[in-house]
Amino acid sequence: MAGSILGDIFKISTWGESHGKALGVVIDGCPAGLELSEADIQKDLDRRKPGQSPFATPRKEGDKIEILSGVFEGRTTGTPISLIIYNKNQKSKDYSALKDVYRPGQSDYTYDLKYGHRDHRGSGRSSGRETAARVAAGAVAKKLLSVLGIEITAYTASIGPIEVDPDNFDQNYIMDNFLYMPDQDAVKKAEAYLTEMIDENNSSGGTIECNVKNVPAGLGDPVFDKCEALLARAVMSIGATKGVEMGKGFKAAEMSGYEHNDFYRYNDSGEIIKETNNAGGTLGGITDGSEIQLRVAVKPTPSIEKTQLAVNRSGENINLNIHGRHDPIIVPRAVVVVESMVALTLVDLLLKNMTSRIDYIKKVFNAEN
Amino acid sequence: MAGSILGDIFKISTWGESHGKALGVVIDGCPAGLELSEADIQKDLDRRKPGQSPFATPRKEGDKIEILSGVFEGRTTGTPISLIIYNKNQKSKDYSALKDVYRPGQSDYTYDLKYGHRDHRGSGRSSGRETAARVAAGAVAKKLLSVLGIEITAYTASIGPIEVDPDNFDQNYIMDNFLYMPDQDAVKKAEAYLTEMIDENNSSGGTIECNVKNVPAGLGDPVFDKCEALLARAVMSIGATKGVEMGKGFKAAEMSGYEHNDFYRYNDSGEIIKETNNAGGTLGGITDGSEIQLRVAVKPTPSIEKTQLAVNRSGENINLNIHGRHDPIIVPRAVVVVESMVALTLVDLLLKNMTSRIDYIKKVFNAEN
Amino acid sequence: MAGSILGDIFKISTWGESHGKALGVVIDGCPAGLELSEADIQKDLDRRKPGQSPFATPRKEGDKIEILSGVFEGRTTGTPISLIIYNKNQKSKDYSALKDVYRPGQSDYTYDLKYGHRDHRGSGRSSGRETAARVAAGAVAKKLLSVLGIEITAYTASIGPIEVDPDNFDQNYIMDNFLYMPDQDAVKKAEAYLTEMIDENNSSGGTIECNVKNVPAGLGDPVFDKCEALLARAVMSIGATKGVEMGKGFKAAEMSGYEHNDFYRYNDSGEIIKETNNAGGTLGGITDGSEIQLRVAVKPTPSIEKTQLAVNRSGENINLNIHGRHDPIIVPRAVVVVESMVALTLVDLLLKNMTSRIDYIKKVFNAEN
Amino acid sequence: MAGSILGDIFKISTWGESHGKALGVVIDGCPAGLELSEADIQKDLDRRKPGQSPFATPRKEGDKIEILSGVFEGRTTGTPISLIIYNKNQKSKDYSALKDVYRPGQSDYTYDLKYGHRDHRGSGRSSGRETAARVAAGAVAKKLLSVLGIEITAYTASIGPIEVDPDNFDQNYIMDNFLYMPDQDAVKKAEAYLTEMIDENNSSGGTIECNVKNVPAGLGDPVFDKCEALLARAVMSIGATKGVEMGKGFKAAEMSGYEHNDFYRYNDSGEIIKETNNAGGTLGGITDGSEIQLRVAVKPTPSIEKTQLAVNRSGENINLNIHGRHDPIIVPRAVVVVESMVALTLVDLLLKNMTSRIDYIKKVFNAEN
Repeated sequence: MAGSILGDIFKISTWGESHGKALGVVIDGCPAGLELSEADIQKDLDRRKPGQSPFATPRKEGDKIEILSGVFEGRTTGTPISLIIYNKNQKSKDYSALKDVYRPGQSDYTYDLKYGHRDHRGSGRSSGRETAARVAAGAVAKKLLSVLGIEITAYTASIGPIEVDPDNFDQNYIMDNFLYMPDQDAVKKAEAYLTEMIDENNSSGGTIECNVKNVPAGLGDPVFDKCEALLARAVMSIGATKGVEMGKGFKAAEMSGYEHNDFYRYNDSGEIIKETNNAGGTLGGITDGSEIQLRVAVKPTPSIEKTQLAVNRSGENINLNIHGRHDPIIVPRAVVVVESMVALTLVDLLLKNMTSRIDYIKKVFNAEN
Repeated sequence: MAGSILGDIFKISTWGESHGKALGVVIDGCPAGLELSEADIQKDLDRRKPGQSPFATPRKEGDKIEILSGVFEGRTTGTPISLIIYNKNQKSKDYSALKDVYRPGQSDYTYDLKYGHRDHRGSGRSSGRETAARVAAGAVAKKLLSVLGIEITAYTASIGPIEVDPDNFDQNYIMDNFLYMPDQDAVKKAEAYLTEMIDENNSSGGTIECNVKNVPAGLGDPVFDKCEALLARAVMSIGATKGVEMGKGFKAAEMSGYEHNDFYRYNDSGEIIKETNNAGGTLGGITDGSEIQLRVAVKPTPSIEKTQLAVNRSGENINLNIHGRHDPIIVPRAVVVVESMVALTLVDLLLKNMTSRIDYIKKVFNAEN
Repeated sequence: MAGSILGDIFKISTWGESHGKALGVVIDGCPAGLELSEADIQKDLDRRKPGQSPFATPRKEGDKIEILSGVFEGRTTGTPISLIIYNKNQKSKDYSALKDVYRPGQSDYTYDLKYGHRDHRGSGRSSGRETAARVAAGAVAKKLLSVLGIEITAYTASIGPIEVDPDNFDQNYIMDNFLYMPDQDAVKKAEAYLTEMIDENNSSGGTIECNVKNVPAGLGDPVFDKCEALLARAVMSIGATKGVEMGKGFKAAEMSGYEHNDFYRYNDSGEIIKETNNAGGTLGGITDGSEIQLRVAVKPTPSIEKTQLAVNRSGENINLNIHGRHDPIIVPRAVVVVESMVALTLVDLLLKNMTSRIDYIKKVFNAEN
Repeated sequence: MAGSILGDIFKISTWGESHGKALGVVIDGCPAGLELSEADIQKDLDRRKPGQSPFATPRKEGDKIEILSGVFEGRTTGTPISLIIYNKNQKSKDYSALKDVYRPGQSDYTYDLKYGHRDHRGSGRSSGRETAARVAAGAVAKKLLSVLGIEITAYTASIGPIEVDPDNFDQNYIMDNFLYMPDQDAVKKAEAYLTEMIDENNSSGGTIECNVKNVPAGLGDPVFDKCEALLARAVMSIGATKGVEMGKGFKAAEMSGYEHNDFYRYNDSGEIIKETNNAGGTLGGITDGSEIQLRVAVKPTPSIEKTQLAVNRSGENINLNIHGRHDPIIVPRAVVVVESMVALTLVDLLLKNMTSRIDYIKKVFNAEN
């Protein structure tokens, strides 16, 4: 209700401020019997972790995950899984200078308007650091989806004006560069562009694409819980996102029905296939078994060193200079966050879909008829 | 859970198939004491109603709303408001020819995959007709928002390649043309374009923009219930939408932080204002009191007369010819649906925000300090 | 949220006032493929219907159910099932005399305190008539449970001081008497007692018991969603209930651990059985496959003709004389309501339990190990 | 959904096994601005803590609470409050002997039936230890309710056959004895009775009563969210409870309407008062401002040293001897748990009630008429 709980069956409840003692997540509704270890989760957290790239803040967060409950002898028990990450690097004094300032592009002002009282240290609850808890929960979701062979892949699709060229697309290259881009040439151009931004004390936006393969048909529910609606909500809940598209997205608005419709054919094995996938994997809000394809717009990092116009709580206009290194771009570290939010959405839809038909009930309870 | 219920406090539960006896919505959680009449609702339904324009299906639906409960002596009682629209124009036989066919761009195939059994008449539950219930509920939400002076305006921003020119923007013109566009020149061009599409037995996509004025600050909750996340979910749950943006949206991905950040200044009245509104009305997922601005991509009508490749349930590839007039474009009739979904989202956030602070509790219960 | 929606997967949303145009319920989340007809529902509604017994109000309500959506060619489609009952017998003038009076034992005063504005006609939303919608939804739930052979039986266990004698218990007799008691002798005594109450212009309380056979093991979730917790909530939400017990209930408070514990044995077929069922069918909030047994206390009808002390809204103490016939006892008509609430609770737990184990997921999606 | 989350606005998500690393709770939806310290919570935990009485297990749990998030400079921020208690006394080997045994009156068997895989150490998730997290959350709820002067008092009302005598009722004595009984004579008799039970290696049940003073009118929602329904669910979700009553409870079933109805009068200050409070504080499910009164039946401790009949997972009937000291009665330590569950229920209803009327909305948002 107050926004830190997500999901209907696979429910996650996240908590923690940027500079508090710790942050974490409780997962209620993970089925029993899933193999799960801290290593399964740590490997995704490491992708989000700062300090690994010339294009990310050098703040060493550590981000070591600990499982506190819900797993026994290496398998989930069906009871709540509590995951915690202790904050090692809390230097609150770094931030005291900003406690009465409303920084452009940050939530300082809106949190004050809403709550009247806020933890100002490092953006508190609205820090990007909050996403570590999502990634931890998402790793559990991905483990569960892997039982059915579902594979989620996200990557950086553009950085500022530099876009991945589909002709150069190399999925294997994604994990081999700090920018998580599937195109070697684009990476080089993007690195040059980001260096320029860093030199200007400025920052860059970008886009992330996410594809899901081996999705079972039938995920998503009519009307408000359409698969694309819940995916859109999930990725638009990541702090810096400004837009989301499924399939052809905004390009669909310029197409004709004849161009946009995906035509059906039977293949040689007698299965129905689509000749194209303009829809991006769903029809009527329900997956058809084809690849889910979505794209997310991420705004540039709002914390920049370049002097900006701002105000303080004492009624003064000020020229704001933010010191210290920040990520010159949010996108690369957000790739795994998008992946996690997609996984969390799909796992919930998958579990819900189990209750959609009388014949599934009969299967589970071994009912004759 | 099964997708036809939306909202946490102002909960709506919609029901009904395109060619069933009726369709409707139950609203649970509307505060008591709101003045409400059938006329308040009917005027929005009339904007969605078919048969009013050369660019919309001539099917006469009537769409007469009836309030069955929850309103007494002209005011809401706080108990569920049940709204019903009887279907007058049920010609099921029109559709029997298509019952074994999977039409491109429709949900025939996915509903069968999910449920094994579906009402095939006129797309059943996944018909655009379902949105009439949303519009009815949305009209109640808008009535409630009007108590605080909140104003929501949606309009057609583009049709195929024809876009509204910001320099010609005329808000008063929106309700004066069948396309609900705020630009006389664009309307002329769009009419020509749509006539061309009709002649080709084809259809067009387009975009809708929605602005909200006088929004109280503080709406939206941290992390998953960010205002933009819930708005994205709400509009992406409308059948034909393929993308959504807040503020600069995908353009933000190409901007630098210095360009995208909205700078703050105190105005002469000592109020904090933003010099720009690139963010589109929220920061950290919470409204700041500035205008909410969003944009939605709508795909072209999938039902076209032009021959398409399709399959049937008997394992055959077929050439599909759909007869009968359909909307050559979904956008104009969807304008009021977008407006409704935005209203439903905001009313729920508004009610939730009432519980966010101890001092609000003291106000409501007249507690001393 | 506002209290007229129940369930997490099999969600029901009820609406309607006693003297409004109609009342009804929308069920969202009923699995597709369930055979369902109006007759399935009507037969339960007829058990609740007034005017059938010398011990019930002669108000002829009719209570004819109509299915408006969600069922196609005799089977559910997985989309919302809307059920409606039109009110035939709306004589609002009968009630106008009481519109400014706060009747003892009724909700007049509390609804005014809460909402400031209420439909005073025949208790409006808080009328027992509201339960017709629950019974309609409950009939659908029972139909679904019957797929797995689950049988729910409720009956009158006591009327005022007259209790059913376990030695005379005759399940077949329940449906053969207006009081729905399983004991011919008790029925005679109860009839005499009720006649006395009627002669005094007074009313009687009583208790209802409900047993469920063939319950699958595993229903109920740890901590807050224990089977008994959700059953307690469900039956305590019926207007006139004042208490609920599972198994030995309050008697357990006087027993020792050795007496109360149900001992386990393997039977000849190698199945685990309990030697007793003091627990009433669950342990740790989860069903063990034995019979669920619960008991509900129902207060006497508050509307009595005997003169009572009351107040009106003008600040006056008054002597209240309520005219017209009312049920001298609520219990017999509430028997089917208890049955319905138990069914609704179990169906939701049953569907939730499908998602509790990885091996169930593999079964439904035909996943290899 | 999986049962460890409770509440619609003030949402709590509990986690942790008896012998895991830690247990805790996340509260999402606590309003901002509430003063809160660890001491506020610790004092309630200390009432539940074992090892303090001759009639409780000597296991030293410590139960030291730590606030990990959501509180800044001594006040809540409106973001999730994460509370943790580390388990100090994990001797898993103590329990290994029982890992293949199904103990009578415990959840060993049902957890295995449901999940196929469970943490058998000290009853795992279904241990009474789980309630420490509820008490921690309940302490926060009570702090919030105290802003409006609401006072909740629970106490032991009976132990086995020994009942509190209303004529000896002394509220101040409750916190002065290990049994939390408000009657010195009853305490003496109960101590004798419990000593007898301990000597027999047996255990005792009992009842708990809970009263709430200064409750605002208007809490509770029509139909399914009646105040008494949600209270019943809350207290029946405590592991060992077997029944619950409001006001006269089961006695109401034997009363006539004239006896049970609470008559209204205006007092000298022109306020409406009830001459009696048989209803226990609500009508139609909504509080009327009078005292809430409920009573809970608690079964005897199932873990007893006396030899019992049981089974193991290898298909054998066994004679079970459980060694080690257990509480001879659950009731005294459960008193604060009942208080906590009542507090959690009321705080949620209180927050929901803020959204029930248009005039409350106007108050919060300072809207003109």
